[in-house]
Amino acid sequence: MMNGRCVITVGDLGEFGIVARIAGRLPQGRTVLLGPGDDAALVGAPDGRVVVTTDLLLENRHFRRDWSTAYDIGRKAAAQNLSDVVAMGADPTGIVVGLGLPADTPAGWLDDLADGFRDECALVGASVVGGDTTRCELVVIGVTALGDLGGRAPVTRSGAREGDVVAVAGRLGHAAAGLALLRDGRAVPGAAGAGARPGGAGSAARPAAGPAGAAGVPASAGAEDPDSGEAAPVALAALVDAHRRPRPPYPCGVQAAELGATAMLDVSDGLLQDLGHVAHASGVGIVLDPAAFAVPPELEAAARLLGTDPLEWILTGGDDHALAAAFPPGVRLPPVWTRVGRVTGGEGVQVRGRPPGHGGWDHFRD
Amino acid sequence: MMNGRCVITVGDLGEFGIVARIAGRLPQGRTVLLGPGDDAALVGAPDGRVVVTTDLLLENRHFRRDWSTAYDIGRKAAAQNLSDVVAMGADPTGIVVGLGLPADTPAGWLDDLADGFRDECALVGASVVGGDTTRCELVVIGVTALGDLGGRAPVTRSGAREGDVVAVAGRLGHAAAGLALLRDGRAVPGAAGAGARPGGAGSAARPAAGPAGAAGVPASAGAEDPDSGEAAPVALAALVDAHRRPRPPYPCGVQAAELGATAMLDVSDGLLQDLGHVAHASGVGIVLDPAAFAVPPELEAAARLLGTDPLEWILTGGDDHALAAAFPPGVRLPPVWTRVGRVTGGEGVQVRGRPPGHGGWDHFRD
Repeated sequence: MMNGRCVITVGDLGEFGIVARIAGRLPQGRTVLLGPGDDAALVGAPDGRVVVTTDLLLENRHFRRDWSTAYDIGRKAAAQNLSDVVAMGADPTGIVVGLGLPADTPAGWLDDLADGFRDECALVGASVVGGDTTRCELVVIGVTALGDLGGRAPVTRSGAREGDVVAVAGRLGHAAAGLALLRDGRAVPGAAGAGARPGGAGSAARPAAGPAGAAGVPASAGAEDPDSGEAAPVALAALVDAHRRPRPPYPCGVQAAELGATAMLDVSDGLLQDLGHVAHASGVGIVLDPAAFAVPPELEAAARLLGTDPLEWILTGGDDHALAAAFPPGVRLPPVWTRVGRVTGGEGVQVRGRPPGHGGWDHFRD
Repeated sequence: MMNGRCVITVGDLGEFGIVARIAGRLPQGRTVLLGPGDDAALVGAPDGRVVVTTDLLLENRHFRRDWSTAYDIGRKAAAQNLSDVVAMGADPTGIVVGLGLPADTPAGWLDDLADGFRDECALVGASVVGGDTTRCELVVIGVTALGDLGGRAPVTRSGAREGDVVAVAGRLGHAAAGLALLRDGRAVPGAAGAGARPGGAGSAARPAAGPAGAAGVPASAGAEDPDSGEAAPVALAALVDAHRRPRPPYPCGVQAAELGATAMLDVSDGLLQDLGHVAHASGVGIVLDPAAFAVPPELEAAARLLGTDPLEWILTGGDDHALAAAFPPGVRLPPVWTRVGRVTGGEGVQVRGRPPGHGGWDHFRD
């Protein structure tokens, strides 16, 4: 029971009811030859090779149902896998999703999750082609994404060469700042991200998503005072939204491949740590210029509020799924790419003017 | 500490140590163009299409660490996904694995799990091409398998036609009987399955797998008395092994496709329930002949011991991953296939001489 009305749960639907219900919400794109409902799906791989990547997301570790809506969780879980495909220089084609759900999960929560997957996939022309569901005490989401290279060579982590330009596309530090605000109990109203969904059939009449009413982090908006020069709550809310729903720079992956990128990855655990993988795999060093990173006003404001250095978030924050790449020295980069450093003959990653040592996210230790 | 010696745990290794350790145990086959270690893997898809399927396995729901070794769990988790690929008439090429592990999991347990994945994949020429690890209170395993159709049409669930022959390949009811024995507390010595591993570098010197010493279910062997006509413990142990480690009839999938199978699936939730999916998807009925199912002596013995009907296990037991298929009426089936029924113009699945209604496994309700 919820809001005095009887709510259908996933336990009521059962495994096959869940599959039927979700499948009905998932349009199948042109790359899909056989969608959900059989032992396996069949997806086009015109290149004759297929890019594949997987991630496992656990409730209270990778997301919280009281901090993010089901829709946001679906968007984010899809995004982080699609971003890995894009970081190889490939076009995503399809994803499959393994779902563990508590039996008392409202069916509407599941609908919203599926819609999140659907809408994130739609950004890159991919489809949710299959999945599996089982009962679990916590929400568990396993996503595997496929992609097609269109005849291009994959852009790996190991091709960076001394003298290459290091550049990034997409946001850095926003999700980390948003998470810090949430952890600090800085309640900010949901802005464009959480809760807000593109309109569409089925979304209007549905009860509020999530057992904890996750859509609205209380709108008490914290203590920011616009008159004192602090950022308006709406700017901070954008950071919280960035935590809830990353916006990977999808078109930049294929673009980088076509520009001749020698190495690339998606920044999921923090720029320093992730570039460390490139340096290690390529047998090179990387030196970053801290002055190259523009600090947007909302990051400045959040850092002031929490008494920290915004550059820390930019250099070590994960979850924005920016792309970081190395390019040959003479490359002409479109404005969406920002040059932030150089590949050197040394080893490891250094930030000019800062002591060595880098932070980042280890999913076993943090 | 274990056996008075210091044991390295996955928490000691950390996320990147785990990845490096597992990757070192996983040979990459000829279909793999780029294996573990980058944002994504790259696998050959010579057909220009790729078959993809995923399953999520949870500790204490799909397996128990005190009933199965890590090696068996790896074998089983791989098998049930490879079987889904095979059931489309495809050859498996690669799998990716998302792993949630408690931080105190011994590194040797992880090694054994990886070896189980590796060895099951080797049976079909596939490789473990990538994965993801994260900390979790329970062991969570998300497996996604890929496959190639080699130019064949996929064999779906929806092509069965009135008059078709229904046939099965592989074991039925063995895993269900083994699980019933375990649930009943019938301790049987580990036979060929649990604990026993093919020899190989690294396996000899390793401490016994699993925190609970899962390799040996106590060898007290229950009350079976060979003189009274009951099955010898070793025969019952083979059923327990069947639960721990299915043996899908892998070569039969492509064989069925080449024989012109009109519909096919792998029996994971019970023959009646799974054939129900074929009947529903194909818009037909299926009638099974109970006399067509040979009941092997170990199933007879186990059923006598537990006071049940072995045909129940055969008709409703899951987890053996047999293949069930419909073939055109004139088909000449190799002996590995057993004709068990007919496709009719009705609906649903009936067993001749039995009342309607079918059992099976719903991962949300059972």
